[in-house]
Amino acid sequence: MAGKSGPSPARLTFGKKLRAVRRAKDMTLEDLAETSGLNWSYISQVESGHRNIAVDNMWKLAQGVGMELKDLL
Amino acid sequence: MAGKSGPSPARLTFGKKLRAVRRAKDMTLEDLAETSGLNWSYISQVESGHRNIAVDNMWKLAQGVGMELKDLL
Repeated sequence: MAGKSGPSPARLTFGKKLRAVRRAKDMTLEDLAETSGLNWSYISQVESGHRNIAVDNMWKLAQGVGMELKDLL
Repeated sequence: MAGKSGPSPARLTFGKKLRAVRRAKDMTLEDLAETSGLNWSYISQVESGHRNIAVDNMWKLAQGVGMELKDLL
């Protein structure tokens, strides 16, 4: 049975990998906001694991950094 | 820029793969509800791509079928 409290390991992994890839590509939060269509402050919270992000937005962010979503998990 | 309407390809892929894996393991929706802690009718909607599921629940469902989340994307 999955735990009921705290962020999932997948949420934390996605945030860390997204941030690492974004920085490796020399993209700012503002750059990724532009390529993904999402707000930069929302993206910052996702990268920190503070948002339980839904799959459609995960896909937008993966597209925004030019990666497959599976490679950010 | 990501599209603004309709379910993302990632949402549809996750639903299809989850259903395929669940069935390959001879698990019913009720079985997966028990192993994931989520409601069976919600899981059915996720498998059909009708829910923009969040990462923590995706993780619970992957755990519930004994897979890594990345392998369902």
